[in-house]
Amino acid sequence: MAHSLSPLCSLSTCKNNKQYYKSFRQNSTLFPVSLGIHISGLAFERLGKRLNRRHAISATAVSNDKVEARSGSFQTNGGALKSKKVMVIGGDGYCGWATALHLSNKGYEVAIVDNMVRRLFDQQLGLDSLTPISSIHNRIRRWKALTGNDIQLYIGDICDFEFLSEAFKSFEPDAAVHFGEQRSAPYSMIDRSRAVFTQHNNVIGTLNVLFAIKEFQEHCHLVKLGTMGEYGTPNIDIEEGYITITHNGRTDTLPYPKQASSFYHLSKVHDSNNIAFTCKAWGIRATDLNQGVVYGVRTDETEMHEELCNRLDYDAVFGTALNRFCVQAAVGHPLTVYGKGGQTRGYLDIRDTVQCVELAIANPAKPGEFRVFNQFTEQFSVNELAALVTNAGKKLGFEVQTISVPNPRVEAEEHYYNAKHTKLVELGLKPHLLSDSLLDSLLNFAIKYKDRVDTKQIMPSVSWKKISAKPKTVAA
Amino acid sequence: MAHSLSPLCSLSTCKNNKQYYKSFRQNSTLFPVSLGIHISGLAFERLGKRLNRRHAISATAVSNDKVEARSGSFQTNGGALKSKKVMVIGGDGYCGWATALHLSNKGYEVAIVDNMVRRLFDQQLGLDSLTPISSIHNRIRRWKALTGNDIQLYIGDICDFEFLSEAFKSFEPDAAVHFGEQRSAPYSMIDRSRAVFTQHNNVIGTLNVLFAIKEFQEHCHLVKLGTMGEYGTPNIDIEEGYITITHNGRTDTLPYPKQASSFYHLSKVHDSNNIAFTCKAWGIRATDLNQGVVYGVRTDETEMHEELCNRLDYDAVFGTALNRFCVQAAVGHPLTVYGKGGQTRGYLDIRDTVQCVELAIANPAKPGEFRVFNQFTEQFSVNELAALVTNAGKKLGFEVQTISVPNPRVEAEEHYYNAKHTKLVELGLKPHLLSDSLLDSLLNFAIKYKDRVDTKQIMPSVSWKKISAKPKTVAA
Repeated sequence: MAHSLSPLCSLSTCKNNKQYYKSFRQNSTLFPVSLGIHISGLAFERLGKRLNRRHAISATAVSNDKVEARSGSFQTNGGALKSKKVMVIGGDGYCGWATALHLSNKGYEVAIVDNMVRRLFDQQLGLDSLTPISSIHNRIRRWKALTGNDIQLYIGDICDFEFLSEAFKSFEPDAAVHFGEQRSAPYSMIDRSRAVFTQHNNVIGTLNVLFAIKEFQEHCHLVKLGTMGEYGTPNIDIEEGYITITHNGRTDTLPYPKQASSFYHLSKVHDSNNIAFTCKAWGIRATDLNQGVVYGVRTDETEMHEELCNRLDYDAVFGTALNRFCVQAAVGHPLTVYGKGGQTRGYLDIRDTVQCVELAIANPAKPGEFRVFNQFTEQFSVNELAALVTNAGKKLGFEVQTISVPNPRVEAEEHYYNAKHTKLVELGLKPHLLSDSLLDSLLNFAIKYKDRVDTKQIMPSVSWKKISAKPKTVAA
Repeated sequence: MAHSLSPLCSLSTCKNNKQYYKSFRQNSTLFPVSLGIHISGLAFERLGKRLNRRHAISATAVSNDKVEARSGSFQTNGGALKSKKVMVIGGDGYCGWATALHLSNKGYEVAIVDNMVRRLFDQQLGLDSLTPISSIHNRIRRWKALTGNDIQLYIGDICDFEFLSEAFKSFEPDAAVHFGEQRSAPYSMIDRSRAVFTQHNNVIGTLNVLFAIKEFQEHCHLVKLGTMGEYGTPNIDIEEGYITITHNGRTDTLPYPKQASSFYHLSKVHDSNNIAFTCKAWGIRATDLNQGVVYGVRTDETEMHEELCNRLDYDAVFGTALNRFCVQAAVGHPLTVYGKGGQTRGYLDIRDTVQCVELAIANPAKPGEFRVFNQFTEQFSVNELAALVTNAGKKLGFEVQTISVPNPRVEAEEHYYNAKHTKLVELGLKPHLLSDSLLDSLLNFAIKYKDRVDTKQIMPSVSWKKISAKPKTVAA
């Protein structure tokens, strides 16, 4: 892949704002390339109470390295190799960061769009990743230094259509992977204003992405992160997005009925319905990835350098079940099973998240197609997870206790669950299955950073039933 | 019903605003009562670009008239007659106004909550009701003068939770009928900002109502206006909200799959999903009225005085099919059938809208129940409607032409359609069926006001496929 200096990013949104440029040089021991970071604009505007910070950083480089064709490249009519351009919205988050690096490593040209609001949530709620994480700027500079690969960075809020338009017009993505949503069910159930924020942010952000594709990049394939939680726990098998129903002697294939049970999960249902409509009405091509619960920290790319390390959330608001259990085991905190523990869900390794997203991009939906994949590899009940962590802990010499705590959620604690997940396997997914060795690795990660654990953050603090219209304040 | 002076409304939202009081006397020839209108507060706050005007008008009266028990009253433990309190959100609109008067006439104590934005849309788009309509203030004063019945008025935006809270705490409704949404599919398809407005306004407004009920009036029954358009046109029978599915040998009753096809219709699907969740999680009692296309102008109450006259929209943005056809016939404009005209939908007379809402209130959902009624009385294709209007026009001596215009919507123009609608009939609905006489009456109404018709507003102006992210400007 030949690098060349791209033109300075000149966002029209910056016209009326003070512009400043900042550049510096940085040398890497692996790939000695010159790196220019251009902060082409920094604008603050208030739209109600919304965070609305924009600036675009375009990290470009001069290099003549020849690299072999990778999955992110395609041959043009003239025979030249060209990279597919992928915009990763929410590319600073847990799944987004791992995905951005993976795609960059595979030869895709990647831009990250993020408003950094996930880091703000940590500041506001007094939370922190178990693993120390670098700023997005340092992450991208380190990636460049290590691999020679540019990742463009657009800092801004996709609910601000002026910002999003400029990002689309400037980057011209072939695919947009959309992780850019408030992604915690408990967060959405803290109080009314967080519930409203979650639905506004997720639904309007996604509407804006759909309009940006229609207006500026009609061929762009939307790869949208949904959640298995959209389906709830019906007493029949869960299919991938659609179900064929025979009723009163007639048959049709219809969207699978959804029964989401938090304002967050509901926001994803709303998104799915909105996207399906635009595929039909406008010919948008979209893949909805109904993802299970993700676990793990390392991917091939994030383990290249500590500055690339991914976040790991173990708190009761953002922590996912298995990650939280491993951290609890490492610090000698009992594993907190909510209620009876029969809650069964689909799970997947974060290395499979990045693989699935790449498969979806490499095999895009057709124009007008709204494709739904269930993205997980194995099903476990919470009790099964607790037993697995207990056994893995034993091998490492830990005495792991499990306690049942009152379930803060409203959900069935014993139920039928059988969800299909064959479509990504048909596209080539090679799952990393949960095994003792993986648990060892995740547990060892937790042990390495156990001094950073704030045990006050482990017990559930958000109740589905007690949520109030009044703003919940957070004390020290 | 004995009237007594209620305490002056003292909204806490007014605390920091200039307060002023205005009162006057008005005599009615029918019910000579003294009428005091207290404008207890007028506050303007900016929340982004949102219209956010609040004031509460409490029209109270002193009267010792004894009236017989009506359906809106119930006997307290002590044997006294007490009125059920119903908040009609969006009570100045087409269905809302007719409903507010009907409920008031039936002995319910009614408060209207409205931000008047429907009238603003007319101003912005250069539209007007075929029928001349009075201001909400004059409407309420006239109703009081004619019947002695108070209707309280809360002017404000339900997306503003501070306003909504005060309205709930002040009025303490037993039921909240929620018409307060942007209700036009074409409006939601004008441009990106109207699409976003529609989903934000409808989804966040409804979330706020749910939180207000949870926080202040847990027993309050939410009667929410949905639409038959939520279901789309599946190739199987449409059930009322739920469908029992047998799949791979197992059976469950699940939410009926939705396939809405405009950002407006989608917003109602989002609402339904949000409400269903809060019924389950919080025990909210709710009825979702999936209403068909409403036609007609007169109800028993609105025809009592010309100042009570309801609006009638015939334009391509807000006009519903049959109303528009009657106006077209009256002014000699060809009936505009979109595409093939096989589009089949459920229809109902506005006199049945008010009857259905009353039935839902009088027979409330149980705590935690999310009840769905399909609210229409007859199915017609667009071609069938055109034929009915043509025949009725002939009897009045009109030569009615029909033309097919390119369909601005994305929808099936020939399809199976069989929607169930028995639940409201089981509760006692006595339908006003569409008949030649009704057509005569609606046609005569159109003829009476035909000089007010702006024929420029009749042809479709909004395209589902051509909607742009750019703001659509409206010239004179």
